[in-house]
Amino acid sequence: MKKRLNFKNREEFTYYLFLYLKNNDAENFREEFLELHPTDQVEIFKLMSKEKRKKVYRYLKPPEFAEIFQGIELQGQKTVFSELEDEFALSMLNELPADDVTDFFGNIPDSVASYLLEKMDKKEANTIKLLLSYKENTAGSIMTTEFITLSPKETAAEVMDRLREEGLGAETIYYLYVTNEEETLIGILSLRELITSAKEVMIGDIMKEQVISVSAFADQEEVSTIIKKYDLLAVPVVTSEEKIIGIVTVDDVIDVIEEENTEDIGQFAAVKGALDLNVGAWTATKKRLPWLILLLFIGMLTAGLIGSFEGMLAEVAILAIFIPLIADMAGNTGTQSLAIVVRGLALEKFQRTEIVRLLKREAATGLIMGIVCGVLVSMIATFIPQGNMIFGLIIGVSLFATVVISTLTGTVIPLIINKLKIDPAIASGPFITTINDIVGLFIYFTIASMLLQFL
Amino acid sequence: MKKRLNFKNREEFTYYLFLYLKNNDAENFREEFLELHPTDQVEIFKLMSKEKRKKVYRYLKPPEFAEIFQGIELQGQKTVFSELEDEFALSMLNELPADDVTDFFGNIPDSVASYLLEKMDKKEANTIKLLLSYKENTAGSIMTTEFITLSPKETAAEVMDRLREEGLGAETIYYLYVTNEEETLIGILSLRELITSAKEVMIGDIMKEQVISVSAFADQEEVSTIIKKYDLLAVPVVTSEEKIIGIVTVDDVIDVIEEENTEDIGQFAAVKGALDLNVGAWTATKKRLPWLILLLFIGMLTAGLIGSFEGMLAEVAILAIFIPLIADMAGNTGTQSLAIVVRGLALEKFQRTEIVRLLKREAATGLIMGIVCGVLVSMIATFIPQGNMIFGLIIGVSLFATVVISTLTGTVIPLIINKLKIDPAIASGPFITTINDIVGLFIYFTIASMLLQFL
Repeated sequence: MKKRLNFKNREEFTYYLFLYLKNNDAENFREEFLELHPTDQVEIFKLMSKEKRKKVYRYLKPPEFAEIFQGIELQGQKTVFSELEDEFALSMLNELPADDVTDFFGNIPDSVASYLLEKMDKKEANTIKLLLSYKENTAGSIMTTEFITLSPKETAAEVMDRLREEGLGAETIYYLYVTNEEETLIGILSLRELITSAKEVMIGDIMKEQVISVSAFADQEEVSTIIKKYDLLAVPVVTSEEKIIGIVTVDDVIDVIEEENTEDIGQFAAVKGALDLNVGAWTATKKRLPWLILLLFIGMLTAGLIGSFEGMLAEVAILAIFIPLIADMAGNTGTQSLAIVVRGLALEKFQRTEIVRLLKREAATGLIMGIVCGVLVSMIATFIPQGNMIFGLIIGVSLFATVVISTLTGTVIPLIINKLKIDPAIASGPFITTINDIVGLFIYFTIASMLLQFL
Repeated sequence: MKKRLNFKNREEFTYYLFLYLKNNDAENFREEFLELHPTDQVEIFKLMSKEKRKKVYRYLKPPEFAEIFQGIELQGQKTVFSELEDEFALSMLNELPADDVTDFFGNIPDSVASYLLEKMDKKEANTIKLLLSYKENTAGSIMTTEFITLSPKETAAEVMDRLREEGLGAETIYYLYVTNEEETLIGILSLRELITSAKEVMIGDIMKEQVISVSAFADQEEVSTIIKKYDLLAVPVVTSEEKIIGIVTVDDVIDVIEEENTEDIGQFAAVKGALDLNVGAWTATKKRLPWLILLLFIGMLTAGLIGSFEGMLAEVAILAIFIPLIADMAGNTGTQSLAIVVRGLALEKFQRTEIVRLLKREAATGLIMGIVCGVLVSMIATFIPQGNMIFGLIIGVSLFATVVISTLTGTVIPLIINKLKIDPAIASGPFITTINDIVGLFIYFTIASMLLQFL
């Protein structure tokens, strides 16, 4: 066993690593630093000054540094890349998984990417060109091409020997893909099944023939749904002729899941695109303001609505005091229903029969809540100083109707929008809220005007 | 290679499986059914009538049926379990991973669970009793105890032979945990590293000594954060003496991530607990209504607020038309900021310096948006029929102040709540919205009353 210092404290560890760098102690630095998990290496690397970074480029070999480069976000990658010597940079690019190089190339000037592709290892370069051809957020754009294929005629022992040679080059060797002479995917074998099989058995006899796969054009959300559903570690990406061209691994899918969840919350609150904490105030404003202005103009509709009842308000100013209450309750109930539907759609929980069941349940829920809220508020409105029974009736019935309708709106609208395959951003919280406000206030003033003579 | 029918169409496949059952054709049923992925087996099983299910219990062996039982949700498990013969049921329980049995036992009457524990395999039963002792949503409650440990003195070849024997019993063999004589976790080795090593090398020389682990009492959210951060397939669970007692695998963590995301959206829209689509209208109402009623009473505050300005409203009824607009814009901006902060907290993006940066950015964003919205609405208010410049000034300044304050409220309140470790449900969308409404309307009427004489 290697003799090594054991630091429980991260800060202490970092201190010693920086000391090694300061003293140009390459050997100790390498020994301690390379023992860390790449994620920890990246965190410590990010704390380094340019001076220290330049030493790291000298002390680490390209394959070792490639691990760190993979874990830095794009801005950092650009900075680092500009600090590398050409030869080191090219070696590193050749070591990186094709999908990581693809991500990087997709974000630097085309001329630079082309230049680098010319200089890189031919095979690697061709793979990257292929990956770059796929649209963003598709399986093809997030897949990796480093996987192992087997022939059905190989024996378990032969494969084990082959893995000993090739094993380190693949993204994962835990699933092995079996292809025939035409390179069509005909089966899958897990490493566990391989290891626990007898040495002379043929791959074709132990492989699983029902293979779950996705098309390269499939949306990344579809890929993550499949990996979630079948508890897979990776899913193969195939062409329309069932030829395997890549795999998507579970760790990339976890990133996709978080991205999609962030997107959902963003749409829900109408801040899509502004959730990135790294953008400055101007960029954040540019993304949030258009939506706010749109809502402002829609809000003018409520103003116009109330304006048309101005005469009545002048008479019965007391009607005004419940305007925000009606608007708020309309908004809240609608938002509750919207959240339920949005989440259900995201988790793919809706079959046809379940939609009907959901609508029935939401209608019933809306009714019960509407009755309770309506009765409560009408009692309050009756007994406050300025109030009376007629007033209580007006506000009670209005709130009841508002709650029921808002619940249904918040349920039905996102379902319809999803069905029509329109951008669900339209079904965002503020949009539904504003619609419900208008409907609720309209009901309120209409009922009020009907019962006005009794007030 | 087995001779088999190849059905691309799921419905066709199910039809033939049901036909085999109907004709009591155990052999063909077994051959086709067991070829499927367990998730697909479960989906087809769920479509079966009781009569068909009883045949399945006879045609499948307990280990094979255990895979299906694992994939059914709790209600279904209870139904199925009651239909099994005692001996079959006990065999199946002994085959299931301990964490799945624990989940099941945690939801049936204690007397039944105790009875079954008495009859089960002693070792399995003790493991389950241990797992049952952990609080819900902790690492201990979601971990599995089926993992492989190695001695640092074993050689790679010896481990490979051992895996051939024991490999199928573990939840995962892709990570192998190295322990010393005291059973303390001293290192970790991936199966890939094992396979690509020379046969006679000692485990102690190739293992990674920096092991990332969690305590059994750690929250499940912490476990999922670690697995996400380090792209792990599993993380070991250790005691305070660093003895390994279980592992949590990535597929369980994906479920945790979705649970936590559902919870976040639920809190955001104040529907926490009602997102489950399986609950009936009464249960959904009981979970949503208390919150709505609370908001209703808070909303009475807005009514009271406006009521105190009633005299002014009777004079200048036109002021009423912008009430919902002020309230809506206050709500929308607040919700935008809230979404950003909530999501940032969930993804653990906030260090101390970043909070200051965020506040500065939100303040700047709020200012810019406030100016734009304020100017826009004051222009509109000036030029509508009933309007004039004073009115435009009132509404413009009010909206400006409202937007700025709402942005800050939506940012600061959730941060404070998070810092105080209070239940973030208080920071939900509707709550922030209501607070912002009250503040916004207060500003509106105060400014209006100050400039009233000029109207």
